[in-house]
Amino acid sequence: MSDTRTASTFSPPVMEARRWIEGVTFPAERPLINVSQAAPVDPPPEPLRRAMADIVMEDASAHLYGPVLGLPELRAEIAATWRREYRGEVAPEQVAITSGCNQAYCAAIAALCGEGSEVILPSPWYFNHRMWNDMAGVRTVPLETGPDLLPNPERAAALITPATRAIVLVSPNNPGGVEYPAALLAAYRDLCRAHGLALILDETYRDFDSREGPAHDLFADPDWAEVLVQLYSFSKAYRLTGHRIGAVTASTARIAQMERFLDTVTICPTSLGQKAALWGMRNLGDWLAGERAEIIARRAAMETSFSRLADRGWRLMGCGAYFGWIEHPFDEASDALARRLVRDAGVLLLPGTMFTPHGAQAGRRQLRIAFANVDAAGISDLEARLGALPG
Amino acid sequence: MSDTRTASTFSPPVMEARRWIEGVTFPAERPLINVSQAAPVDPPPEPLRRAMADIVMEDASAHLYGPVLGLPELRAEIAATWRREYRGEVAPEQVAITSGCNQAYCAAIAALCGEGSEVILPSPWYFNHRMWNDMAGVRTVPLETGPDLLPNPERAAALITPATRAIVLVSPNNPGGVEYPAALLAAYRDLCRAHGLALILDETYRDFDSREGPAHDLFADPDWAEVLVQLYSFSKAYRLTGHRIGAVTASTARIAQMERFLDTVTICPTSLGQKAALWGMRNLGDWLAGERAEIIARRAAMETSFSRLADRGWRLMGCGAYFGWIEHPFDEASDALARRLVRDAGVLLLPGTMFTPHGAQAGRRQLRIAFANVDAAGISDLEARLGALPG
Repeated sequence: MSDTRTASTFSPPVMEARRWIEGVTFPAERPLINVSQAAPVDPPPEPLRRAMADIVMEDASAHLYGPVLGLPELRAEIAATWRREYRGEVAPEQVAITSGCNQAYCAAIAALCGEGSEVILPSPWYFNHRMWNDMAGVRTVPLETGPDLLPNPERAAALITPATRAIVLVSPNNPGGVEYPAALLAAYRDLCRAHGLALILDETYRDFDSREGPAHDLFADPDWAEVLVQLYSFSKAYRLTGHRIGAVTASTARIAQMERFLDTVTICPTSLGQKAALWGMRNLGDWLAGERAEIIARRAAMETSFSRLADRGWRLMGCGAYFGWIEHPFDEASDALARRLVRDAGVLLLPGTMFTPHGAQAGRRQLRIAFANVDAAGISDLEARLGALPG
Repeated sequence: MSDTRTASTFSPPVMEARRWIEGVTFPAERPLINVSQAAPVDPPPEPLRRAMADIVMEDASAHLYGPVLGLPELRAEIAATWRREYRGEVAPEQVAITSGCNQAYCAAIAALCGEGSEVILPSPWYFNHRMWNDMAGVRTVPLETGPDLLPNPERAAALITPATRAIVLVSPNNPGGVEYPAALLAAYRDLCRAHGLALILDETYRDFDSREGPAHDLFADPDWAEVLVQLYSFSKAYRLTGHRIGAVTASTARIAQMERFLDTVTICPTSLGQKAALWGMRNLGDWLAGERAEIIARRAAMETSFSRLADRGWRLMGCGAYFGWIEHPFDEASDALARRLVRDAGVLLLPGTMFTPHGAQAGRRQLRIAFANVDAAGISDLEARLGALPG
């Protein structure tokens, strides 16, 4: 199977990490702290669950095929929200609903790239982006970020070749946690426009951005659709992870291309999940504001804990959205350390090497902590366990 | 965008057909007969909906991420069912749950093929298979079937090249409606084994096969996993179309490869949909038997109607599962006729040209009727409208 699509990439990191804890018992006084995946641990709030239960019983269409590109009402609601929050023009026809945000990325790449195309991806990156590029026959061109985790547009410009089709940015960033400044995103928009590239902007964690007001003004550009392909997820905002609903906003021409991919790969996103997302957008604004405040409080707890761990050599390089990107103080590589943390500290997290090019030095000193899953007490506990870890 | 993945294929036929009825009004005395898509028009039975509503309220895990390859209980239930019904050995680890059966096909091809691989596909084919091959960089090698719609293994053997990786069969067939004899499937198994190919067998419509007992003995072969990749769908059996749940059964090595694809494209199938499918398998056996009996009765009504239409030049070439494959009596090509049927007869169906190689003569005289959506009265109405159609 050596020349198959799947053989061109690696095994899913999250599933590999889950295997590390198989057969390991964690004592009652020190239960596992699982900060490996950005996934809510609680179900959607009760009013949303009740609305879903009613839909299940009363609304036949929730069980049947819907349009490939999603329910028109949900597409319209997203367009209206983007218009209002980003202060630009977005039409419902420029929005497609996908079976999760990973699929939005896959659809975008399928519509932009062919065999041998190149895509520039800042490193550390979200591993599923890298995996899809591999399986799509697209060469990932790593753009190394420095200590501030921000990708430098001049370095990006130097990586552009005739085969380049897109630059991919994730803000707030996974795994780095950093929120990209609006000016940086605008610089990438200009760079992409100048070279006829698409700018794929993954805003899965936008609802947890700590800044007030719009995070960027890309949609305020009347010609945004020439350049921008924006991705979004409903998994985090309303805790609908298990229902797999995401979205992509792009030009109608690109949406029409993506329709071919989406039809073939899943036919349509789940109807119930879409109706739940729509209900959430219309009714859970205040609730989501509370969720965001809680995440921002946990971020502050992370910053406090790591400032206390600094004299033991731990360093918080980036922190925001759901993630902290950590430099550890040990000589061993992060993948070995991550396995040791399971046994010696009862902590499951992902090593930096899962987010960086194979064989690179970059991720060997880093770890990703998905802190959003853990409350302030859990973060304090995590601090104690890391601080007590022998070198 | 001419050399992108999506530009290598065509637009979704079902969505194109839906556009034909936009803006057309159908009089109350002659409402639209929609036989374009194999999709239940009613929701799941009330006990299943009630079970789902309870799960939505009580079971947090129904809203959260599950394992990439699906819920262990559902994988085990499918394995047990295949063991019992096909009289062979199938382990839970040989089953993966997918977001619909289209995705099962995509995952199988990704695990078997690379750029430039070849896959043999009997024609007429299921268009989404062709579309995925195109987007995956896989060359579709058409295997034309004769008037009996059965693919000849000797003709298939002549099409095998060093680039061939798989032969794809759909039984009961979409679009042809024919049920492949067990001996034919065994012949393909032997052919694939002799050439080191995979046999991909799509059994989406297995629950509506009119034959009693197992439709084939492929799983009874102790070494089935070397060759066979079987696909299945929960969309039809329990009317869970909108929840997107399918399955693939194959060797554990191939399942491990598919895990990379499934993780990247959707992370996991929906948790609620999987729990609903499991509930259906455990509780709706009798109900499903009734559904099957109804489909078989509709098939008989189709056969009766088309025997009466024979003197007007209509011919039912194949009929079974959800589909009738029809030869029409007119000089015009089926794609033009299909559009005319919307206006002149209030009938929406798909032309044969959507299921055959571009530019081929094969599908120009054929139409696919997804009769499962229409009861006996509707089939009688359809007969009257087709019979009254001017040439």
